[in-house]
Amino acid sequence: MKISVYIATSLDGFIARSNGNLDWLAGSSSDVAETPVSNTSDSSSSGAPEDYGFWEFFNSIDTMVMGRGTFEFVASTGQWVYEGKRVIVLSSTMSSHDVPSNLVGKVEILSMEPADLAEKLADEGAEHVYVDGGITIQRFLHAGLIDELTLTRAPVLLGTGIPLFGELDADVHLRHVETKSFESGFLQSTYVVER
Amino acid sequence: MKISVYIATSLDGFIARSNGNLDWLAGSSSDVAETPVSNTSDSSSSGAPEDYGFWEFFNSIDTMVMGRGTFEFVASTGQWVYEGKRVIVLSSTMSSHDVPSNLVGKVEILSMEPADLAEKLADEGAEHVYVDGGITIQRFLHAGLIDELTLTRAPVLLGTGIPLFGELDADVHLRHVETKSFESGFLQSTYVVER
Repeated sequence: MKISVYIATSLDGFIARSNGNLDWLAGSSSDVAETPVSNTSDSSSSGAPEDYGFWEFFNSIDTMVMGRGTFEFVASTGQWVYEGKRVIVLSSTMSSHDVPSNLVGKVEILSMEPADLAEKLADEGAEHVYVDGGITIQRFLHAGLIDELTLTRAPVLLGTGIPLFGELDADVHLRHVETKSFESGFLQSTYVVER
Repeated sequence: MKISVYIATSLDGFIARSNGNLDWLAGSSSDVAETPVSNTSDSSSSGAPEDYGFWEFFNSIDTMVMGRGTFEFVASTGQWVYEGKRVIVLSSTMSSHDVPSNLVGKVEILSMEPADLAEKLADEGAEHVYVDGGITIQRFLHAGLIDELTLTRAPVLLGTGIPLFGELDADVHLRHVETKSFESGFLQSTYVVER
């Protein structure tokens, strides 16, 4: 089982402004969480919005893990793009009563340590897990559970916001796999975590 | 006059460990400050250590501005690689008495706002200024005085340390110029600050 992160950040490492705003990603407030980096001003020759490889990545995963903050943000957008995926909300403060009625049956609320969740998901047949949201990503990184990171960097400094990375018990060494440069100035790098 | 930053960071945005240590850059403690990113394990075909374009950049500048922290680190190495450049130490707490005897006459200690220093340097004929050190870079970015940033990212997460970027009054928009990928996994991106 592989566990991946796929997320956009500002050049100074923030995944959102302090209030959760993602306007700096696309000049639009209609983005779904920080996942589809849909900078529509950078269309491909077909006229389709640039998705920065998001849907190809998304089609490769079977399970999504997010924290309460990301879930509430996604729920607030009124869009649910995770149809067909197993979606876990990892939270010690949420119960099934906190799930909006239109999303009942679409998500599982679990409260456990990342290592225990990873073991459970592997046991239950997950092959590719997508971990999303600042705190949840930090918890999985801290526990040494992330296999691959795809970071899409927007060419902007925000100065403050919600950081992607947090404290670690030890250095995490990465192997750079590839970097793609987009006309929008976005830069997407994929790293594999070295064990 | 152009003002540039050329600096290496970890993937999580630190220019040094909290104690100033740069071991994560090259597996060696002999690096001079954070400037020459001399990862000697990644030699070019000529057998010379990879300098990540540092000396080409360095040869293009005439003036160097650093803060007290970077100056004291550089002075402690016993090496002085800035021969032939005008070197300003921007500090409100240092006096000429704090300059080690071997460096007297090689540096000017000035205490002023970045904008005033930039005006002074331009008046005195500087053409390309290299601003170095975390706090000094932050002060110049905050004052809107940086024209170009070359960031070399090491493929490692440190979790904690001295951050490159700090708070800003407003977003700083950048234009991505180019990115170079090195076999060591280091990734070097150049950005121009948009006004």
